[in-house]
Amino acid sequence: MAQYLKNAVYQMFLTFGIAMKIWTYYLVNVKIEKRGSERGKIMPSYSTYTHEELDRLYTECKEQYAHFQSMGLSLDMSRGKPGADQLALSAGLVNVLSPDDFIAANGTDCRNYGGIDGIPEMKQLFSEILQVRSDEILVGGNSSLSLMYECASYFAKFSAAAKTGGTKKFLCPSPGYDRHFAICEYLGIEMITIPMTSEGPDMDEVRKHITDPTVIGIWCVPVFSNPQGYVYSDEIIQAIAKLSPASPDFRIYWDNAYAIHPFEGEVPQIANLLRECESAGTQDNVLIFTSFSKITFPGAAVAAVAASPINLDLLRKHLIIQTIGPDKINQLRHVRFFGDLAGVHGHMKKHADILRPKFEIVLSQLEKNLAGKGIAQWSIPKGGYFVSFDTLPNCAKRTIAICAEAGLVMTNAGATFPYGKDPQDKNIRIAPSFPPVEQLEIAMQLFCLAVEMAAIEVILWK
Amino acid sequence: MAQYLKNAVYQMFLTFGIAMKIWTYYLVNVKIEKRGSERGKIMPSYSTYTHEELDRLYTECKEQYAHFQSMGLSLDMSRGKPGADQLALSAGLVNVLSPDDFIAANGTDCRNYGGIDGIPEMKQLFSEILQVRSDEILVGGNSSLSLMYECASYFAKFSAAAKTGGTKKFLCPSPGYDRHFAICEYLGIEMITIPMTSEGPDMDEVRKHITDPTVIGIWCVPVFSNPQGYVYSDEIIQAIAKLSPASPDFRIYWDNAYAIHPFEGEVPQIANLLRECESAGTQDNVLIFTSFSKITFPGAAVAAVAASPINLDLLRKHLIIQTIGPDKINQLRHVRFFGDLAGVHGHMKKHADILRPKFEIVLSQLEKNLAGKGIAQWSIPKGGYFVSFDTLPNCAKRTIAICAEAGLVMTNAGATFPYGKDPQDKNIRIAPSFPPVEQLEIAMQLFCLAVEMAAIEVILWK
Repeated sequence: MAQYLKNAVYQMFLTFGIAMKIWTYYLVNVKIEKRGSERGKIMPSYSTYTHEELDRLYTECKEQYAHFQSMGLSLDMSRGKPGADQLALSAGLVNVLSPDDFIAANGTDCRNYGGIDGIPEMKQLFSEILQVRSDEILVGGNSSLSLMYECASYFAKFSAAAKTGGTKKFLCPSPGYDRHFAICEYLGIEMITIPMTSEGPDMDEVRKHITDPTVIGIWCVPVFSNPQGYVYSDEIIQAIAKLSPASPDFRIYWDNAYAIHPFEGEVPQIANLLRECESAGTQDNVLIFTSFSKITFPGAAVAAVAASPINLDLLRKHLIIQTIGPDKINQLRHVRFFGDLAGVHGHMKKHADILRPKFEIVLSQLEKNLAGKGIAQWSIPKGGYFVSFDTLPNCAKRTIAICAEAGLVMTNAGATFPYGKDPQDKNIRIAPSFPPVEQLEIAMQLFCLAVEMAAIEVILWK
Repeated sequence: MAQYLKNAVYQMFLTFGIAMKIWTYYLVNVKIEKRGSERGKIMPSYSTYTHEELDRLYTECKEQYAHFQSMGLSLDMSRGKPGADQLALSAGLVNVLSPDDFIAANGTDCRNYGGIDGIPEMKQLFSEILQVRSDEILVGGNSSLSLMYECASYFAKFSAAAKTGGTKKFLCPSPGYDRHFAICEYLGIEMITIPMTSEGPDMDEVRKHITDPTVIGIWCVPVFSNPQGYVYSDEIIQAIAKLSPASPDFRIYWDNAYAIHPFEGEVPQIANLLRECESAGTQDNVLIFTSFSKITFPGAAVAAVAASPINLDLLRKHLIIQTIGPDKINQLRHVRFFGDLAGVHGHMKKHADILRPKFEIVLSQLEKNLAGKGIAQWSIPKGGYFVSFDTLPNCAKRTIAICAEAGLVMTNAGATFPYGKDPQDKNIRIAPSFPPVEQLEIAMQLFCLAVEMAAIEVILWK
């Protein structure tokens, strides 16, 4: 108890001392980097500390760190995996069908081969989620990533322009989703980093690059972007719809994975890209992806793509070579489980109730341990699966290494940038969904400590 | 009734007349073409008939044909689709899991992301079906065709040799499976037709072509080949294992779709290709594919590939780019439904009991209507899903058109050859599984009549 009081008093003293220095710094600082003020954080920096002060601070951090190391932790915040309690919400999915329930609305026997488009009732449900027409939907297997890969693969290797050879390029708003970038790298598509704002990609940069006829795509996560949790503004969406790319193969890869995934507030109502494109005469520029992966079971859900008739025809011709059709029984299972769109929205509220406390822990720990220290900034999302976190430059890798050495796995530093290379080595994706609430607090304390240690190391040793 | 008797008498007269002519011809015929004597048929030809005789015969056929046309038939023998009674055998699959049954043998939560290899118990079951080790198995989604496509795609577009460009080639034992050929055509792989014998591919031809370093594959359906129903001999399998191809990318695409699918007699015990290759030091030459598509539900089953560690690693690296993992819940479902290999074999006996009568109808109708007429020959399979049927040269397309005009859909003529072009326009794939027994007899009567009409047309008008 005496030790506890001593620590508490010491912490108070330390915090006050730091706060005063920060305030001074804040008044004179000119190097503030602003990002999405309503969603991000503006903070000053440790850089005004003396070496001695930082040295002492570092020694204290190391003592705390030794304590974490002694705990034998094994925590994973690396991926956007739903937790066990979220998965349990869909338990009824596995036996919702009765043995005689296998005929789709159009008479298709879901057990047998065929039906590259998916069954009508599943197309309908996806069309309501994406707010497009049901004939604009093609249902896939359990992975929207596969559908994105097949589309990118088609335009990089099979289209008339692709066959003539030459390097293709993709625009990659960053920080972004590592698996999007992995597809490009694997397909030999050169990636061009586009700055990301809290409203969406920097459209001046986008417009500049699409005049290059080798640029054949852009990755977008319009709702609760990965990793920031930003929602694209209608102005940006309308600007995207009006893009006039040089390449006929240019497509907007609109990964709407979190379309109906708020954990706070209502489902964001964004401008309808397919309809905006139609108005602009660019309806063939867009491919929209979504799935039930973060609605039911990530490993056993259903994915879909929405697109113009021309694009769907291209995709059908590409897919029919490699499969006789998707798993229609699993489609029927999903439709029966939810009934209708209202059923899906009701289900998502239960997910929100599980995710909200987890994000609250993450954000409150960040606030408590790092706010005002001038060594970090982060996004404050209202949905999706991630918080985007920026350390000081050159600190992300080291932060993650410090976490790992104490048993906390974070997404690799650099993962949110093309080629896994964050030019400033500062962005980290925090994924709060998988660990149970009781582990999350410890994980975040450790994370914040690691951020602090890495920051001091950089300031001291640069 | 009077009409029926009149027809019956007329049919008897007609049959007797034809039979006498055929007998005469048979005694003098020298143009017999032999193929797989124990499974095929030796028959003489119409070619000794006078024009007047054939004219009269044709008129009679047309009268019968008009009768079929008036029936308003809608029959489909185009694909190897299981019938509704076969699908009903797996009815229990849809609700075999209880909501709390989702943990695999290794502790994996089958509901969540991950596990590119599949769950251990599914790998085990596939390993027993294919008689390989469980660590030689990678489990895929609902389509073995997808796995074949991904492998061919890898070696045609992604391997070091593929990236240097230049046309790649595949060896295609033919008649063969149209979807194999479609993969090649789509990937820009040139197809080389290899003659097919009742023991397997013509190995002299195979050996001749694999000295070409651009030849990167061969398609094989070793058990109950598509469309003949042949089973490769051990000698051929051993010769295949000993192939020494010039290309490091050469793979044997061993599509063992019907490994345990006899409808008469026992499961064929063939030489084990992966072990034979191991003995010959060629274990990296082979990729083995199979699935539960014709065991449970074609649209909602589980597929797998068996291969050496090197090949599985290549494939994992290729697949992980496009999916986070296959549907593990459906794997668990399959394992729970069957329990073990004995459960699968017991299930296959029920399929056999449904398929056997259908093949008996097809074969007995062919025998009854065409045997000894010298205008056709066909395979007599003991398993699988097809009968390979040869008309006189230049008659297959016409035969199928005649069928179609009376409401019977057959697989397109030419489909069993690369590029859909049967050089002799004679091979037709008969798929007896889908139509109910009561329709099959009518369908086969119509088919035999069409074969006869097309044959007479060719002889008369050539």
